Amino acid sequence: MQPKGVLIIGQETRSGDRDEIRAVNPSTGEALEPTYHGGGGAEVDQACQLALEAFDHFRETGLESRASFLEAIASEIEAIGDALIERAMAETGLPRARLEGERGRTCNQLRLFAAVVRAGEWLDLRHDPALPERDPLPRADLRQRHIALGPVAVFGASNFPLAFSVAGGDTASALAAGCPVVVKGHSAHIGTSELVGAAIQRAVAKCNLPQGVFSLLFGTGAEIGAMLVADPRIKAVGFTGSRRGGQALMSIAQQRPEPIPVYAEMSSINPVFLLPEALQARGAAIADGFVGSLNLGAGQFCTNPGLLFGVKGESLDAFLAASGNALQATAAQTMLTPDIHGAYQAGVAALTDHPKVREVARGPAGEGTCQCQPALFTVDAADFLADASLQAEVFGAAALVVQCRDVDEMTRVAGQLEGQLTATLQMDDGDLAAARTLLPVLERTVGRILANGWPTGVEVCHAMVHGGPFPATSDARTTSVGSAAIRRFLRPVCYQNLPAELLPEPVRDGNPLGVTRLVDGQREG
Amino acid sequence: MQPKGVLIIGQETRSGDRDEIRAVNPSTGEALEPTYHGGGGAEVDQACQLALEAFDHFRETGLESRASFLEAIASEIEAIGDALIERAMAETGLPRARLEGERGRTCNQLRLFAAVVRAGEWLDLRHDPALPERDPLPRADLRQRHIALGPVAVFGASNFPLAFSVAGGDTASALAAGCPVVVKGHSAHIGTSELVGAAIQRAVAKCNLPQGVFSLLFGTGAEIGAMLVADPRIKAVGFTGSRRGGQALMSIAQQRPEPIPVYAEMSSINPVFLLPEALQARGAAIADGFVGSLNLGAGQFCTNPGLLFGVKGESLDAFLAASGNALQATAAQTMLTPDIHGAYQAGVAALTDHPKVREVARGPAGEGTCQCQPALFTVDAADFLADASLQAEVFGAAALVVQCRDVDEMTRVAGQLEGQLTATLQMDDGDLAAARTLLPVLERTVGRILANGWPTGVEVCHAMVHGGPFPATSDARTTSVGSAAIRRFLRPVCYQNLPAELLPEPVRDGNPLGVTRLVDGQREG
Repeated sequence: MQPKGVLIIGQETRSGDRDEIRAVNPSTGEALEPTYHGGGGAEVDQACQLALEAFDHFRETGLESRASFLEAIASEIEAIGDALIERAMAETGLPRARLEGERGRTCNQLRLFAAVVRAGEWLDLRHDPALPERDPLPRADLRQRHIALGPVAVFGASNFPLAFSVAGGDTASALAAGCPVVVKGHSAHIGTSELVGAAIQRAVAKCNLPQGVFSLLFGTGAEIGAMLVADPRIKAVGFTGSRRGGQALMSIAQQRPEPIPVYAEMSSINPVFLLPEALQARGAAIADGFVGSLNLGAGQFCTNPGLLFGVKGESLDAFLAASGNALQATAAQTMLTPDIHGAYQAGVAALTDHPKVREVARGPAGEGTCQCQPALFTVDAADFLADASLQAEVFGAAALVVQCRDVDEMTRVAGQLEGQLTATLQMDDGDLAAARTLLPVLERTVGRILANGWPTGVEVCHAMVHGGPFPATSDARTTSVGSAAIRRFLRPVCYQNLPAELLPEPVRDGNPLGVTRLVDGQREG
Repeated sequence: MQPKGVLIIGQETRSGDRDEIRAVNPSTGEALEPTYHGGGGAEVDQACQLALEAFDHFRETGLESRASFLEAIASEIEAIGDALIERAMAETGLPRARLEGERGRTCNQLRLFAAVVRAGEWLDLRHDPALPERDPLPRADLRQRHIALGPVAVFGASNFPLAFSVAGGDTASALAAGCPVVVKGHSAHIGTSELVGAAIQRAVAKCNLPQGVFSLLFGTGAEIGAMLVADPRIKAVGFTGSRRGGQALMSIAQQRPEPIPVYAEMSSINPVFLLPEALQARGAAIADGFVGSLNLGAGQFCTNPGLLFGVKGESLDAFLAASGNALQATAAQTMLTPDIHGAYQAGVAALTDHPKVREVARGPAGEGTCQCQPALFTVDAADFLADASLQAEVFGAAALVVQCRDVDEMTRVAGQLEGQLTATLQMDDGDLAAARTLLPVLERTVGRILANGWPTGVEVCHAMVHGGPFPATSDARTTSVGSAAIRRFLRPVCYQNLPAELLPEPVRDGNPLGVTRLVDGQREG
């Protein structure tokens, strides 16, 4: 199974008529076959129209058939076999084991959402029965369920060619909610995207769903994505990528005649707090763990630990030395694209040239194109606070250690941070008081707080929060990983005194779906 | 107990130093004592600073103490006694029974949220226990709860001086979530606002809460509200009012360095579909019900039925005649403010002068100032569709009946409507097929669908949705009435491998709060 160089619009495939797009093997610089042509307004219009036409049917599919559809997508992705892994390796420079793991995560994620759909809590059924005798006014019969928002635009992310791309978390949760999805695929792994898109297309057909449930568009530059977000038939947006890209989509979405929600996961430097007792007792081990997390996947994770805080002194000096040694013992890795590599080099150069920032160590330079040479820097807390640009994300394996006078200063600086996906405490028993002081500050600032671990490696489960205050995301009220992500694409509707024959099945008498309900304020089932 | 002419900032009161504000009795034009002076930047700064300082303590109050606080507010409002009702009557022109009912609703609403806080479902506790032996990678211990967003700015609405004002639904739900609240009170009922604000201030003191949990500001024009929404310490906004006002706040909130959610309930004309069988069988009774709902509170409700659809013919002609007769038999009522009355008259004049719109009837003109003379108009469906201005809300007792060729055209026009709070079906058994065709269109367009009732009269309960797609609200994913409104002011936080001593109480082992949890994906409790 090889990609054909096409866009997928419902059950059709076609070539666009705009600029050529070819994926590039980042480790060799070689352009890969086939050649794609980007789509434009005609393709956006057709995909959105099909999505709208599919919406009323798809959103009313039963729990079992919606869940089976998600499982069918997982099976179709697995059925592509090794061709998918090999194409993804060629397009991203990522190693086989990582991509096989990511495929497993992608398919498990689809199956998790199938289970979430079946459980039906997402419907949030509520029934306040009529009280005809109530004084002074009777109460009407009131029933609530959640329905899908409408067709959703999803943007594939560069750094997870499977798990945050065509069939990734945004697509899985939007489909689970009952929203048709139009994906704007990432050009960097365009062939991988087409293979996965064709798998979804087959699942749509096998499950006898309306073809508009899924389409996949490609295009160079920002134009096609902007058209998609501006289209009045699109009712929500899922995006993982840069702060600039996310903010551009937020702006388009807000300026529409009908503004729509944008779930953009954008920018995070994931502060790590090296508390004094832990740093003193096991600084070398923490340094090893840190460098392992920093360099994982060449640092190309949203949760990469890019900022550390420690109290000035011997323990921190030893930590820096140990981290520097560990960094020098790493191997350089290929970054995802020449653009990402260029941005990484520019970000590292800005830190290198910064008058207040000192370089601690660089990793080996590596050979070939797009090699990430890891970098570790340090700065004083006062200088860090004085220059907001030091909070900018450097996407890749680069980190900045902020040296504080004491834990009080560490806590004060923590209170000045922008919103983050994660914060990590490296702590021992003797650090509990300091950790208690930091905790409320971190709760106000981040989506996930870890102790004695590393933020890379985001579990797809029920309790996960992959989110956080701006600019980590555009909407701190949600998560883009884990089962709660389905809620992003739902809204409540209330039915008052509707005749039984007209009520949608989930809110009918007798609870035909057998899911949990809030009846007169009491939880049932 | 009489208003003193002050702003309330924490446990202090003070006069501002800006423009004079005096409430006006709309039925006499008389300016009421005392004279207020609006606040400015200093008052906004002080209120927001106190709110921020109160936040970490208030958001961690236990379920019982948070609930008791909400109940204490209700008791303090009731303890004001008749002085509150008399002041509200003088400021709004609304009759005693209406205001007594609204006071009951306001206090019941606070007590409903107390029950919601105690039940604890809003915490949405989730626990995915560690799986240290999992292959290939162990799973960390992951726990999730929801926490309050931060200090919230609430704007008092003109048309519900109690239930959507200082201690109204937005304030109650934000406090229930654990958010300190800074209210910008409505100048039209400034004395009523101060009395209620002082009741909340007393409840804060009696419950030994930090003073910054509540402040109440006044100011002329849009300046103080704009400053409040722009303040970086404010993390969400609740607003009920005009489309223009809501959109202005949305714009300010989006342009902040850190954008924040705005829950604006703005504009709705609440379409009513007069289906053929029902119209033929009981058109006169429907006309009576319609005019009763249209003229309730001089039409000054968000859910006022301002738009009706019927199929051209004898039944619709009879309905128009009956409605006209009923309208002429009404009594004119005083509108809330001279501004609202002026806008109503301008809206009615625009319909009167519209070349395609025909006047069906006017109610009696009334005597005195600010009298609402109800008005009923009709227009052909094609002309309605051709002029988007005919979808603009005329706040007050004015309605437009759209005459359609058949049910198909009615459905097509329904599909062109902007987002609405409600849609109503007047239907008999023979109308079921037509209603089934309309239902999905209405689900996509509105927050609440009623059969054989009228949209005015919004029940405060668990299943209510007072919301809907833009421009009915700025955020269709929520409701501003009913217990689900608490969710607007919450966000999830995940704790990974935190030592037991550091875990917040709600997510500790053994479920010390005894509330429902999702454990490894299974619902417990």
